[in-house]
Amino acid sequence: MTSSSDSSKELFERAVKGERRSLGRLLTSIERGGNEAEIIAGLAHQVSGNTHVVGITGAPGSGKSTLTGRLLKLFSEAGEKLAVLAVDPSSPLTGGAILGDRIRMDDLAGEESFIRSMATRGHSGGLALAVPAAIQLFDAAGYEPVIIETVGVGQVEVDVAGAADTTVVVVTPGMGDAVQANKAGLLEVADIFVVNKSDRPGANDARRDLELMLDLGHVSGLEQITGYRPPIIMANSLDGTGAEEVLGAIKSHAEYLHNSGTIHNRQKERLVKEIQNRIELLIGLTADGVLKSELGNRHITQVLDRKISPAEAAKSIVRLLLKD
Amino acid sequence: MTSSSDSSKELFERAVKGERRSLGRLLTSIERGGNEAEIIAGLAHQVSGNTHVVGITGAPGSGKSTLTGRLLKLFSEAGEKLAVLAVDPSSPLTGGAILGDRIRMDDLAGEESFIRSMATRGHSGGLALAVPAAIQLFDAAGYEPVIIETVGVGQVEVDVAGAADTTVVVVTPGMGDAVQANKAGLLEVADIFVVNKSDRPGANDARRDLELMLDLGHVSGLEQITGYRPPIIMANSLDGTGAEEVLGAIKSHAEYLHNSGTIHNRQKERLVKEIQNRIELLIGLTADGVLKSELGNRHITQVLDRKISPAEAAKSIVRLLLKD
Repeated sequence: MTSSSDSSKELFERAVKGERRSLGRLLTSIERGGNEAEIIAGLAHQVSGNTHVVGITGAPGSGKSTLTGRLLKLFSEAGEKLAVLAVDPSSPLTGGAILGDRIRMDDLAGEESFIRSMATRGHSGGLALAVPAAIQLFDAAGYEPVIIETVGVGQVEVDVAGAADTTVVVVTPGMGDAVQANKAGLLEVADIFVVNKSDRPGANDARRDLELMLDLGHVSGLEQITGYRPPIIMANSLDGTGAEEVLGAIKSHAEYLHNSGTIHNRQKERLVKEIQNRIELLIGLTADGVLKSELGNRHITQVLDRKISPAEAAKSIVRLLLKD
Repeated sequence: MTSSSDSSKELFERAVKGERRSLGRLLTSIERGGNEAEIIAGLAHQVSGNTHVVGITGAPGSGKSTLTGRLLKLFSEAGEKLAVLAVDPSSPLTGGAILGDRIRMDDLAGEESFIRSMATRGHSGGLALAVPAAIQLFDAAGYEPVIIETVGVGQVEVDVAGAADTTVVVVTPGMGDAVQANKAGLLEVADIFVVNKSDRPGANDARRDLELMLDLGHVSGLEQITGYRPPIIMANSLDGTGAEEVLGAIKSHAEYLHNSGTIHNRQKERLVKEIQNRIELLIGLTADGVLKSELGNRHITQVLDRKISPAEAAKSIVRLLLKD
């Protein structure tokens, strides 16, 4: 254990100095979770808090990966050393092979930038802890911006996207995509909208739907308070239309966050959310232990016998766990 | 409060007697969450435990909704009174309009069967509590089977699908769909595989990929213990090919569960998972309270000042919350 955390410390020091292989190995530990991941996150946290985090989210097939690729290119051309973390397991950015992943990603990454996919195989608390830790690590290693690509379907995925400083929501024309984004809770976390595949029929309808929802206040309420209204950008990732405009909107939003001081709130919210997730994980482990104990078994039997409800069992166990 | 829970009790009694409007209103309360939802779940739990729960899951565009529609038709023709709960916000089964939802769903539902979508707008614990409560309510009201359609992207969604008695995973040819399903953790919860759109190129490759993954043991380990191997069914939901076979496989799997006694484990696992989710929610609420208190603020400030890590803050707060 000690030698292993020493090694994480050494790897961390090398990663901060720019060694990509060490960074890659640390990300693998973070992905795996557990004690080592916590140590790495702790080291990174100490020297983090400087990068700008951009979330890019949208349903599978919305072309968000291609857009992310375009942004990667534009940022790189502008001399930025950026990191891309693809949380979407189906992201073409990181290929499809089970074993070939790491290799192909490294091929894709430019001289300065770092592309990485993250899969946590659905284990509890996985993404919710691994993504902030990876952000802190990229931050500590001097990557800016850090782009997080998520599939935007699912509660955890929306939470992850919403934890960015600037969240870009990608929708496509047709099939009520904007409406679906609204249902999934994506509108509330959006700082920038992109209507992708804007050459398709219905693109203007999608734009109008979004405008209408913004008018109706289907947003976080930020607009009313601050005057910031999420722009809606028409794009076509395949030929690159709109990508420059998205880049500009990200920069404008970052400027707005800094000028208004809102950036501190976002960073604070992200850390509070992380503490919260870690508390839930710790308590979840304790609760699992109790459920597997004799006491837990008695409760489960009573629920199976329909003598008490699952909610009553939960309350009784929580009373036994928590201090008054 | 008292009058409101009396009313839930009355609605529940009417729903159990077959009144669809009451059932719909109870489902709305469950979707909203909170105290009323808990009361309804408690009432339903007392008389539940009889229905068979079928999870149907797959990425958006995999055609799982059309397959669900086909199964709905086949089950209905066989005289079953079944319920369908679509957790996927983009399910065409339940339409796309924000306001028109309920109306269109009721139009779609047959004489005996009940179709319903569920959207929880990403609030914490939402789906994880609402789906089991809805299952118990359908169970109490005599619906069998209860089909849960989820999008299968995202941790909570995979958990929800995996909590079924029989889980059907739908993949499509091309783009390494099977590989993506594996990454998302879907293979481990699958009892039946459906390769949909089997007229497309690559359908046989998809089948072979799945066979290979099953051979390699990318499954729950159930096969080694029990000899049950998930069948792989080639289907085309558009023209109905394979739907009868899927129905047969669901029935065979249900028989297998009952003959082997495994059904009791699944039902128990589902209840234990529900207790666990409720414990986490309750303690999460307490933890939120602490985070918002003076004590929580001190911890957050120390994290913001980089004096302690989020993990250290979480541990310290948990120590203060939990009994020794």
